[in-house]
Amino acid sequence: MTFRPLHDRVLVRRVEAEEKTAGGIIIPDTAKEKPQEGEVISVGSGTKAEDGSVTPLDVKAGDRILFGKWSGTEVRLNGEDLLIMKESDILGIVG
Amino acid sequence: MTFRPLHDRVLVRRVEAEEKTAGGIIIPDTAKEKPQEGEVISVGSGTKAEDGSVTPLDVKAGDRILFGKWSGTEVRLNGEDLLIMKESDILGIVG
Amino acid sequence: MTFRPLHDRVLVRRVEAEEKTAGGIIIPDTAKEKPQEGEVISVGSGTKAEDGSVTPLDVKAGDRILFGKWSGTEVRLNGEDLLIMKESDILGIVG
Amino acid sequence: MTFRPLHDRVLVRRVEAEEKTAGGIIIPDTAKEKPQEGEVISVGSGTKAEDGSVTPLDVKAGDRILFGKWSGTEVRLNGEDLLIMKESDILGIVG
Amino acid sequence: MTFRPLHDRVLVRRVEAEEKTAGGIIIPDTAKEKPQEGEVISVGSGTKAEDGSVTPLDVKAGDRILFGKWSGTEVRLNGEDLLIMKESDILGIVG
Amino acid sequence: MTFRPLHDRVLVRRVEAEEKTAGGIIIPDTAKEKPQEGEVISVGSGTKAEDGSVTPLDVKAGDRILFGKWSGTEVRLNGEDLLIMKESDILGIVG
Amino acid sequence: MTFRPLHDRVLVRRVEAEEKTAGGIIIPDTAKEKPQEGEVISVGSGTKAEDGSVTPLDVKAGDRILFGKWSGTEVRLNGEDLLIMKESDILGIVG
Repeated sequence: MTFRPLHDRVLVRRVEAEEKTAGGIIIPDTAKEKPQEGEVISVGSGTKAEDGSVTPLDVKAGDRILFGKWSGTEVRLNGEDLLIMKESDILGIVG
Repeated sequence: MTFRPLHDRVLVRRVEAEEKTAGGIIIPDTAKEKPQEGEVISVGSGTKAEDGSVTPLDVKAGDRILFGKWSGTEVRLNGEDLLIMKESDILGIVG
Repeated sequence: MTFRPLHDRVLVRRVEAEEKTAGGIIIPDTAKEKPQEGEVISVGSGTKAEDGSVTPLDVKAGDRILFGKWSGTEVRLNGEDLLIMKESDILGIVG
Repeated sequence: MTFRPLHDRVLVRRVEAEEKTAGGIIIPDTAKEKPQEGEVISVGSGTKAEDGSVTPLDVKAGDRILFGKWSGTEVRLNGEDLLIMKESDILGIVG
Repeated sequence: MTFRPLHDRVLVRRVEAEEKTAGGIIIPDTAKEKPQEGEVISVGSGTKAEDGSVTPLDVKAGDRILFGKWSGTEVRLNGEDLLIMKESDILGIVG
Repeated sequence: MTFRPLHDRVLVRRVEAEEKTAGGIIIPDTAKEKPQEGEVISVGSGTKAEDGSVTPLDVKAGDRILFGKWSGTEVRLNGEDLLIMKESDILGIVG
Repeated sequence: MTFRPLHDRVLVRRVEAEEKTAGGIIIPDTAKEKPQEGEVISVGSGTKAEDGSVTPLDVKAGDRILFGKWSGTEVRLNGEDLLIMKESDILGIVG
């Protein structure tokens, strides 16, 4: 089963960030309300303007991204928990 | 009795998602506040801009879609409970 | 006494939906917070854009429509209770 | 003393609607939270767009109108209580 | 000391309205939450659109205006209490 | 250390208004929730429209301005407490 | 690991402001709810308009900026706590 996000939405697989600090200390849960890391699985055709013109998104499948902890809608596809969010919820691309 | 959605609205038949996980475990109700699956029955003529121009929708009758649990307005047509929602409430198309 | 709705408004006569389900069961009141059915009596000249241009409405007198239960403003004309609503409050047209 | 409404505003004299139903029954006060009837006394020069262009209003002095009970600002002019409202608060014209 | 309002703002001197009704009855304070009368002292250069173009205002110095009781910001200039408000807060011009 | 405001922002030095009325009476603190006077120190390059075009501001360094008491963000630069605000927070220019 | 902010976002390293006043007095914590100083590390490609056109940002890597205390989202990259914010959250550039 495939999934094609509509318009300016992207399908994202959450990637668990390192649970340790640079010095190897475990971060307790309450200190982790930070942006989340994810991998873009598929993207919509683009942002649709009122006049019907479509602008392609700037992220593409395979991009590693950061997004706010509460962004997106959880969705289960093929037994896997994924996220659907708008490109505007994405903070940036990790290179 | 037929129904023609207006503008950027679509008529959707809710499809019950699999109640089991990939491993066959029954998901209790509280864990199911996830997007819903549906089938598009009919679509409006398109999004109408302020200048009167109309942009056709990207979904069409027969598409299997995901949408947020609380999207749309319930409507009973020909003895069947259906949903009317805007295309912008649709998260994407299941292929 | 006639009434001409202004701009993108329409005058609607509420039509009582069937109080029974397909199987003939009476639906109790609390189960009926569903869209309402109505008949369009007259329509405004159209949606007026900021530049003054007017786009005619897509519904016309005689159309059978569905609209949200809480849409519109009740108005009494010639001793009859009618509704004035905007076209954007109309969910679609029943054929 | 004359009064010229600014832009898309209109000056309205409230007209007391018939207090009786078609059958001649007096409607108690609580049942009257319905639109109000009024007569347009004067109108502004029109809606002013951001680029400075002006679109004349669709109502004119002498029109009998319906408007929402809570629309407009009460103003006393020449010892008479009148209302100033925007054209968009007017539901339609009674013919 | 002079004051030049910025953009679509105007400087207004409040004019005390007649405290009596047409019949000469004193209106108690609670009945006076009505629009206020004022005189325009100076006006800004006009409404500035996003593209930088400026549209002159429709009111001018010397105009007698009505405005909502809570409109504007009180300012003391040369020992006199005045009001600065946007032209859109002005209901109309008293002739 | 210099500071260049971004876009439509301006850097303002608060000027203490005269604490006395025209008649020489000291105004108690609670009566002073009035606009504040300030001097513009530097201005941004202008308002940036969605298409990237820039419209220069109407205020310039050296202008004496009035602004709402709660406008702007306090900032300490070179040991001095200043304010950064948007041009739209400025009520007008004192001549 | 590099990070490329999306659209009109910038990546910022917080710079601790001097904890002392000009006179050398330590400012207690409650008096420090002032704008923060930071250094721009990298910037997005620019603001994207509805028609897809992109306007480059006015800040660039290396700029020293002031921003509101509560602006931006904290993010940990390569073991360092940084901030991602929109250019519109930046008050100005310290020269």
